[in-house]
Amino acid sequence: MTRQELIASIREKHSFLCVGLDTDPKKMPQHLLDSEDAIFAFNKAIIDATLPYAVAYKPNIAFYESAGIKGLVQLKKTMDYLHSLDDKVFTIADAKRGDIGNTSQQYAKAFLDPQGDFGFDAITVAPYMGEDSVTPFTVYDGKWVILLALTSNKGAFDFQLIEDKASGKRLFEKVLDTSRKWGNDGNMMYVVGATKADMLESVRAIVPDAFLLVPGVGAQGGSLTEVCRYGLNRDCGLLVNSSRGIIYASNGADFASRAAEEAHKLQLQMAEELTKVGF
Amino acid sequence: MTRQELIASIREKHSFLCVGLDTDPKKMPQHLLDSEDAIFAFNKAIIDATLPYAVAYKPNIAFYESAGIKGLVQLKKTMDYLHSLDDKVFTIADAKRGDIGNTSQQYAKAFLDPQGDFGFDAITVAPYMGEDSVTPFTVYDGKWVILLALTSNKGAFDFQLIEDKASGKRLFEKVLDTSRKWGNDGNMMYVVGATKADMLESVRAIVPDAFLLVPGVGAQGGSLTEVCRYGLNRDCGLLVNSSRGIIYASNGADFASRAAEEAHKLQLQMAEELTKVGF
Repeated sequence: MTRQELIASIREKHSFLCVGLDTDPKKMPQHLLDSEDAIFAFNKAIIDATLPYAVAYKPNIAFYESAGIKGLVQLKKTMDYLHSLDDKVFTIADAKRGDIGNTSQQYAKAFLDPQGDFGFDAITVAPYMGEDSVTPFTVYDGKWVILLALTSNKGAFDFQLIEDKASGKRLFEKVLDTSRKWGNDGNMMYVVGATKADMLESVRAIVPDAFLLVPGVGAQGGSLTEVCRYGLNRDCGLLVNSSRGIIYASNGADFASRAAEEAHKLQLQMAEELTKVGF
Repeated sequence: MTRQELIASIREKHSFLCVGLDTDPKKMPQHLLDSEDAIFAFNKAIIDATLPYAVAYKPNIAFYESAGIKGLVQLKKTMDYLHSLDDKVFTIADAKRGDIGNTSQQYAKAFLDPQGDFGFDAITVAPYMGEDSVTPFTVYDGKWVILLALTSNKGAFDFQLIEDKASGKRLFEKVLDTSRKWGNDGNMMYVVGATKADMLESVRAIVPDAFLLVPGVGAQGGSLTEVCRYGLNRDCGLLVNSSRGIIYASNGADFASRAAEEAHKLQLQMAEELTKVGF
């Protein structure tokens, strides 16, 4: 999906919501667990219920891998279903990959190749190994790399805020700055956690036009209003993710309708924020 | 596999060789390609041929994921075969994972859980997201996290050598130093590229007793002698990986015997280095 198509979809739905599919059989409604395809059945119900309010879906790959090969079959079914929809959505493999060049090429093929099992639009990538670990993900037309800059977890403070003596930049700023040479606003986004909303100003100073994928709203405690204050730009420029807050709103028979309600609530807030900035 | 078992295996084989299974159908002998199980057939032949000379095997997960679900079936067959051997080897998932705590837990389950599809002894993990992204990999008994410190690729220079203004440490030193609190020499190793052998002295100053996984000997240009000069410690403390130099020594019918020759050459050099330090 191109940047223009993504922006058009945000405009149409008045939403920049990404629904995180961190699907965990332990947290799913009991009545689904009998099925061989329980994970897919859950995802399909969540997708059908939230589709009017969401522009993106983000399966968290760890949750599929932890069920072994069977889990990846469920991921493939989920992706096949997303690709089959008339209402095209932006799909993100939340995979945090990154390795030496010849190996990142293989990860890019695994997740982004339209001929492969999954054919995602985008993949999250860790920047630690530098340029040749990131650029192989930018070679597919209309596909995206989403580079970790400032993550939403406590461990973000261990290394991401280190101040580089030579440039005076913090590590996440250095990542933003350096990686501008590796891609462009049409094939590279950044992860910036909602729990670090006060640092979004520093992020926007370096990447004013880039799309940001913002996890951490909801269960992790981030505020949508704060994220929008500093993060919205003239093209919206945000995809805000919610996982647990939506998909586990209920673990009863009403899980899908409760997920729809939570997604709708966020969409209404997003529509209001978009109106404020005249989008 | 515990540290003591690993050391015993090194002592028995006079070897600290790890064979990297970066198995790529494009580089495999033609005669294997007819089989549905070509990747496993190749791996099995390589394992059988190199087993007298190697203490560890390291499937590079990207190469299996790039073949989709079928590729992961080949990985499972390879792991089942390694687990079935009387000659127990140390198995490393070269996966470069790492995410927020609840997600790293799922990756740990995927790769390390003895009840799972793979049951590796160890997994490589990227440190960018800090403590809660790493510690979930240390909870399984006898299992290891292998944290990236200084990688073998060109991109290592982008961020890993940044000097932290507050501590005067370079990022890779900060990773080594900080992570000492997250594990111990019995459940945490580090990746240090052979192409940066001159920096092994700085690494050993911080982690004198830790095992180091050293890629980059062979195709990437690193020198085994240089690695040993600074890297060997009283318990050996090294696992030196070679992938392409061994598994693609020939792409003809003699690929397995040529792989054995290359592995044997490295093993003989390793035995000599071990003797030098009186191991």
